[in-house]
Amino acid sequence: MTILVLNAGSSSVKYQLFNLPHPTPLAKGNIEHIGPQGEVKNHRDAFAIIQKSLIESGAIASFDAIDAVGHRVVHGGDRYSQAMRIDDEVLDAIRSFSKLAPLHNPANALGIIVAQNLSPSTPNVAVFDTAFHQTMPPENYLYAIPRAIYEAHKIRRYGFHGTSHHYVALQMAQKLGVPLESLNLITLHLGNGASACAIAQGKSIDTSMGFTPLEGLVMGTRSGDIDPAITTFLLDNSTMTHHDIDTLLNKQSGLLGLTGDNDIRTLLGRVDAGDTQAQISMQLYVNRIKKYIGAYMALLGRVDGIVFTGGVGEHAVAVRSAVLEGLAPLGIVLDAHANRQEGESFCITTSKSPIATWVIATNEELFIAQQTAALLES
Amino acid sequence: MTILVLNAGSSSVKYQLFNLPHPTPLAKGNIEHIGPQGEVKNHRDAFAIIQKSLIESGAIASFDAIDAVGHRVVHGGDRYSQAMRIDDEVLDAIRSFSKLAPLHNPANALGIIVAQNLSPSTPNVAVFDTAFHQTMPPENYLYAIPRAIYEAHKIRRYGFHGTSHHYVALQMAQKLGVPLESLNLITLHLGNGASACAIAQGKSIDTSMGFTPLEGLVMGTRSGDIDPAITTFLLDNSTMTHHDIDTLLNKQSGLLGLTGDNDIRTLLGRVDAGDTQAQISMQLYVNRIKKYIGAYMALLGRVDGIVFTGGVGEHAVAVRSAVLEGLAPLGIVLDAHANRQEGESFCITTSKSPIATWVIATNEELFIAQQTAALLES
Repeated sequence: MTILVLNAGSSSVKYQLFNLPHPTPLAKGNIEHIGPQGEVKNHRDAFAIIQKSLIESGAIASFDAIDAVGHRVVHGGDRYSQAMRIDDEVLDAIRSFSKLAPLHNPANALGIIVAQNLSPSTPNVAVFDTAFHQTMPPENYLYAIPRAIYEAHKIRRYGFHGTSHHYVALQMAQKLGVPLESLNLITLHLGNGASACAIAQGKSIDTSMGFTPLEGLVMGTRSGDIDPAITTFLLDNSTMTHHDIDTLLNKQSGLLGLTGDNDIRTLLGRVDAGDTQAQISMQLYVNRIKKYIGAYMALLGRVDGIVFTGGVGEHAVAVRSAVLEGLAPLGIVLDAHANRQEGESFCITTSKSPIATWVIATNEELFIAQQTAALLES
Repeated sequence: MTILVLNAGSSSVKYQLFNLPHPTPLAKGNIEHIGPQGEVKNHRDAFAIIQKSLIESGAIASFDAIDAVGHRVVHGGDRYSQAMRIDDEVLDAIRSFSKLAPLHNPANALGIIVAQNLSPSTPNVAVFDTAFHQTMPPENYLYAIPRAIYEAHKIRRYGFHGTSHHYVALQMAQKLGVPLESLNLITLHLGNGASACAIAQGKSIDTSMGFTPLEGLVMGTRSGDIDPAITTFLLDNSTMTHHDIDTLLNKQSGLLGLTGDNDIRTLLGRVDAGDTQAQISMQLYVNRIKKYIGAYMALLGRVDGIVFTGGVGEHAVAVRSAVLEGLAPLGIVLDAHANRQEGESFCITTSKSPIATWVIATNEELFIAQQTAALLES
């Protein structure tokens, strides 16, 4: 089955073409600088370029060869707990969640409309970043704010990176030879954005990103958890507006704000070179991850496995060893040698470690394609 | 040694008179409704009432009998890691931290000035709520925000309830018969305000309250941890000002905001009566505490003991059992029978529990008196 996966941002469209069940894409690419002043005028032109490129490269003979388009959609609100075949109702809902994801959902909706218009007979499927976390119980998705505020504005924990957490959890179940439904896992997606997820009996019960992707772990440019009073303090004691503070916390904070660098390799180089500021900042980054591992162990009680994924999780040996250092009393015994491997998936704890910890490469595009295909076949 | 302990708020002054080493106060009281429209015009009048009351009740023959006054001061900034004899420099510093604790430090400073003026020869000592947490390492007190913002505004984790965390940690060391300096503990101060503290080798290395007392656990009326983007979202999508949001998160949130009740006994009654909203909210409150226990276990590695204190921690049997439920895999095995005791201090885990958990009544006033006396004697 031939599936085109689209990830439409405000000024870019990423795509991968799969011939399932083969996991390797036939073609992939990224159209950037879309916009009136850009190299590509609009999303319609971008989609036409993708069509043309797929045909000219020989990946497909014509666009009719594509069985379906799977769209990555960031926000499915509290409505969608799984992938959805897109009709007018679903498209309207995606648009209605734009207030919750103003940078992403409008672009995602635009990508869908362009695909519909340029190839009306091809089915479109939405795969939501929030869907996997819709199993969280209310005690974990509610904030301790007035109920009326939650109800009026739908302010609650949604969580993101759901496709990635779900994908690596399924991979981990395969590695352990146990159905996901009987596993308690902690998955750590560490990239430029980063989140942790507590999975009980195969279902997400808590995750570190919340109402927005700002909460939780320290990220490349996002602060993660802070005292919420810091915003009101800065409004009272600086010239910043709340939009400035929004930008500050989302784009100028995290490792970048602490050190001036948000590339982990550069930072680890500075750590090795004895740069104190880099060392403290890396330990802050690492301690935040440790705290979420511990927090989710306390929520889950029994933990069968931990998974590192995402660019940093898959490749930063020193980050993984720092995160797991000192966790032997909690049942996680690092195998320092195994941790230095590279690959699609490998175990980094000793055979005697009560909790197995693995590195598993995520593949959100493949999983979007698989979910799109599964929905069409069902 | 006769020590008067004062806790001066903006419209109230609480006091206790100790004849150390006796731990029971000779006298105590609370002057409320201080203010131009109140029953007592100002703090000077309040202090005169306290003097008169202590003498007339026979607690002391004259004010000269008081060896020192110990003042509870909320914020000691990043300067004071222990109690300080108050001179002009210390008083100026206390005033200078008013920006960090606008509701408390100005009143604390006023209480000091009144005491100095009415009894110039009596030494005054400041005991800071933040002092115990000044041992936190930078990776735990820094937020992942731009370094320039930290430096310009001193925005960092300070932590509060330090006197209480330190006091119960010392008591716990006595119970375990081990010097505090060799113990790793997690202390949980659960009252209307609430905070958790991770103590390594007797020193605070992390605590849940942060830049202000808003962060961390769910409290009576405070939200504790939320996505920091919620504030900016509400500023964009409601008519609330940032002062309204400050009030919302500090005074109208927490258990009160979730359920309409912030009295734990009332809430537990509703839980028993099958009120779903109360049940979900209590579980949210409990899960937040669980998560901090787990987080601090991950930071500490080895944990020797856990302490519950504060009004809720000391008396709410059902809260303690819910918090410890399911934590046996982490080494905390509740003794349900022992947990139903009442008293100054008792162990609530089984003799086989790897981590001993105790309930220990806090006594901040006594500890302020003891630190005041110790400072004078040194």
